[in-house]
Formats: sequence, C-alpha cells, structure tokens
Amino acid sequence: MRPHEDDITAWFRQQSRIDSSAFPIGIGDDMAEIRLGDSASVLITTDMLLDGSHFDLRTATLEQVGYKAMAASLSDCAAMATVPLAAVVAVALPPGFGDLKLRGLHAGIAVAAEKYNCPLIGGDLTSWRQDHPFAINVTMLSKRSANAPVRRNGAKAGDVICVTGSLGGSLVRKHLEFEPRVHEALRIARTVTLNAMMDVSDGLSTDLNRICEQSGVGAILEANRIPVSDDAKTLEDPLKAALHDGEDFELLFTLAADQCAELLRTWNERVPVTPVGEIVKGLGMQVRMPDGEVVELTPGGYDHLVGPE
Amino acid sequence: MRPHEDDITAWFRQQSRIDSSAFPIGIGDDMAEIRLGDSASVLITTDMLLDGSHFDLRTATLEQVGYKAMAASLSDCAAMATVPLAAVVAVALPPGFGDLKLRGLHAGIAVAAEKYNCPLIGGDLTSWRQDHPFAINVTMLSKRSANAPVRRNGAKAGDVICVTGSLGGSLVRKHLEFEPRVHEALRIARTVTLNAMMDVSDGLSTDLNRICEQSGVGAILEANRIPVSDDAKTLEDPLKAALHDGEDFELLFTLAADQCAELLRTWNERVPVTPVGEIVKGLGMQVRMPDGEVVELTPGGYDHLVGPE
Repeated sequence: MRPHEDDITAWFRQQSRIDSSAFPIGIGDDMAEIRLGDSASVLITTDMLLDGSHFDLRTATLEQVGYKAMAASLSDCAAMATVPLAAVVAVALPPGFGDLKLRGLHAGIAVAAEKYNCPLIGGDLTSWRQDHPFAINVTMLSKRSANAPVRRNGAKAGDVICVTGSLGGSLVRKHLEFEPRVHEALRIARTVTLNAMMDVSDGLSTDLNRICEQSGVGAILEANRIPVSDDAKTLEDPLKAALHDGEDFELLFTLAADQCAELLRTWNERVPVTPVGEIVKGLGMQVRMPDGEVVELTPGGYDHLVGPE
Repeated sequence: MRPHEDDITAWFRQQSRIDSSAFPIGIGDDMAEIRLGDSASVLITTDMLLDGSHFDLRTATLEQVGYKAMAASLSDCAAMATVPLAAVVAVALPPGFGDLKLRGLHAGIAVAAEKYNCPLIGGDLTSWRQDHPFAINVTMLSKRSANAPVRRNGAKAGDVICVTGSLGGSLVRKHLEFEPRVHEALRIARTVTLNAMMDVSDGLSTDLNRICEQSGVGAILEANRIPVSDDAKTLEDPLKAALHDGEDFELLFTLAADQCAELLRTWNERVPVTPVGEIVKGLGMQVRMPDGEVVELTPGGYDHLVGPE
C-alpha cells in the first residue's frame, strides 16, 4: 500500500515546473529551499482563508479559492512594494475531499503563481476527522526591490492619501477575481518616495486607521474623490460600501504633495491612482461628505475577530 | 472604536522581544522581514494542525497546542539538519474564542520559540463565522548549517538505518510534549556524513517508506533492535506501536556503516541513537521479527488523508 497523501504530493511535484537553480529543494521533502542570490533579507506573510468567512464553496469554485488565497498574499507583497519569490500552501480538508477537488484548487493556485512569478514550492495536506469546512493557509516569501519595503508607520502630516483602482462592493464579484497590485506597487515605489503603504483588505476606514495609528497622525478623506466601484454603485449606499467594505485589495498609500503630483503626471497604467484625502496632525479620522459636512470616520470594515458592524 | 483584532496584534507585538537588527520588520505590518546575514538561501516548512486530528482541546491546554505546533515545525528543521530562524503563525478561531485563550496559545508558542531560538515574527488571526474547531498553521524558516540540508532521497544500499530516542505510543503523552531534535540533528550532521534523513511524524513504517521510495532502495528492519518507548510498552502490541504510530518526532536517518560506527563511538548525548536496520537494493520494506521470521512491512502509520488503518 502506498499512502494516498504521498500520491497527491507526487502529483503536485510533477505539476511543478520549478527552476531548480532558484529552488534547490522543492515539493516532497521536509522543507523547501529558496536560493536568494544577492538578497540580504527575505520577507514573509501568512494568511488563513476559511470557507464561510473568506469564500463560500456553495457558490465559489475551488479554482477561484486557490487563486484568491494566492492573490491575497500577493497583495501583501504589493503592500510593501516587494517582489514575490515563492509560496507554500497548507490545507485542511473535509472528509472525502477528493483528488479532483485538490486538482481544481491547484489549478487556481497555479494561475496566480504563473502570472506573478511566484511558484508553489511546498505545502501540507491534512484532513478533519469530522465534517468541518475547508481551510487554506498561504505563506509567501518576497524580497526587497531596489527600494526599501514600504511600511505602515511612516505617514506624515501634509501627505496626500491615494488609492489604486476603485473601492467597495467586492463581495459582488471582485473578492474572488481581483488582481493583486504587485506591478503597480513596484512601479509607484520606483517613481516616487512613499511614506506609508498597505493593501486595503479590511476596508478603507479600518486600514487607513491602521496607518494613522502606527504613524501617530490623523486623516481627512474627501468623500467625493473616493473612487467608488461599479459594483458598489449597485448597492444601497455606495459611499458607505467604498469606505467600509473589506477585500478591495487595492493599494492605500501616502506621500508628499510634490511626490503625488509627480506620480500623477507620469502615471500611464490601466489601473488608476486617485488622491482621496490628506494626512493631518493629531489623531482620528474625518471625512468631508459630498454636502461639505465634515464627520468623524471610525473603522467600520470587517474585523476578523468580531465580525462586521 | 478600535478593532479588537488590532488590540490583540498590538499585544502580540508588545510580547515579542525581537532583535530588530535580525528582524527589521516584525509583527504588525503587511509582512515581516528576516535579515539573512551571509546565508545564500532559506528553507521553509508549513504545517496545519487541527483540533480533533492533531490535538483535542477537550483534554489538551492551549499552551500545549501552541508548543506542539511550533515543535512540529522545529522537527522539520531538525529533519534536514538546518538552523531554525523564525516562525509565523496563523489561527482559525471558533466564535467567542477569547483573549485569555489566545494568550495561553501564545505562551506555548513562546516557550518553544525561546528554547529553540526561533522567534514568532508575524501571523494572522481569523474566525469561523459558525461553530467550527480551532486550527493553527505554523510556517517556519531555517537556514543551512555548515552542512548541506539532508534530504530524503540519498539513502544507499548498505546504509545503516538509525533513529533517535524511542518510538510508539506517542498519543499517551509525548505528542504534546516532545522535544524536537534540533540540537541532535545538527550535532549528528557535524559529526558524520548522512545520506538521508527525515523526522518520524507519520510513523516509522510510513516515513521509512518515503525515504526508500525517494531514494529508489529497500529496507530491512530488525524488530528486536527498535527502541520501543515506555509508553508503547503499556499498549497491547508495543512493536506494532513502535513501527506504525505517528507523531514520534524522532530523527530517522541512514548513513554508511563506517560513519555509523564513528557516530556511535563519539555520541554522548542524553538522547540515544540506535541502529535499527539496513538499506538494501531493490524496492519494498521488510522486518525481521523477534522470532527470526522476515515479513513484509507496509506503511501503516497515519495517512492524513485516509485516516489510520
């Protein structure tokens, strides 16, 4: 008898077309090895995605889930303007989860791995003893680009706050199909000096609050400048969706006004960059509503521990 | 309002006494950064542990679970004779899982992190929407020692097969409290030339089969030389337990006979090293039973996808 787990691992290994000079040890050993060339450091992110919380397997395909899990980690690489290197994936499977489903999952992972040049180099397969839901954990390594990793804690009073793409309504469609802004982040970091950046994963209000708290500053957003997505426009309160919905996976960054002007002057990518407000002295966030009234803005995005408000 | 998730993350950050020269970016940003010094590569392992499969929170404490999750990954570092560098941990929490429980988990992680010099540098907290069990994923980085990582695929006919410690009956107690053989692996790799090594996580018969298959060789074990643990001796069939039980987390390695003699001559550690058989030409495994009869040995350990036999 040859264990089933080993059969699947062998299949994954066969699928991988990993460059053995960059990855001396790949799938199937106790660890995988990543050669780093002249990099003096490596960056790491880990994210757990759960059926019923981050996707719903009653409506999403396993290809979509595999893609999304990889794309969420790629978005973290983008958030710091770093270059994706490699990923390892661990899954918890409901009893009776068949090979065909695993291959579907792998197909989605492979699409993201290939598109963003970030191969799957190892992983772990395990099963629930009883009927519990599917879970997937992606851990991704990246390396520095020519620029230092952009952190959350460097925002300065007077900075312009910008976002890529458009916001809100991700649950309608985008949360399973989004394009992590890896290319855009590297391009922006190459063009101008960024003071702070992260990706919008838990909603603009929640994530901007993180930048503000870590940087010891406040922020004021201009509601009528926020790029509201077409999907958010189909919802009851599009502005609220753009401010608070999670899983936009767009870039949120701050930079000096002259740097912002330079960025907008030279930016010619398909994905737009939009100034949406300003970093100010003091603490707390405000938003100038379309009618001109300035109101307090509190984090209203999704908190993974307490659920949406 | 400040989100609960951020409070916990801030607490984790305060707990971490990370050397910022080795880890320029730690807990609380989109990624953590690990400075590598003169290492030209980094190794990575990821493992998902599930309530009900790898531990049982009805009887195990969260301290034990945190320790075990770290120790299982440290055992993978040992399995290749590499030096642990840093860990990131992601958890999926049942609804209502409180701060106190998270702090208990953290305490167990911290014990292992400190003992094996492998700090927790980042992670992810997420919750099930409904009442599903606790899951924890540890991803660990390690670096090469002076010796190359020891792989599973280098066993040669004529090699002696050795194990550290004793085997079987791990479920009685050891699976929550084991000591990963990080120190022993590095010491062995420094002393002699190893042809193949892994850690015994799924049972001797299953894991030896993996070395045999990847190396294209067979093996014969001597039943009366296998170090049967005291806990296995309390079970109905101690030899069967030593051959097939999972989660021993001991080292399993093969090396030339003269290298084995040299190792045994110089070995003065508390944890024993025991020769238990020989690598042979051809495929398949056999075991010489205490009565002298040679029988076929098939993988009988735990397969994470099909459950125990």
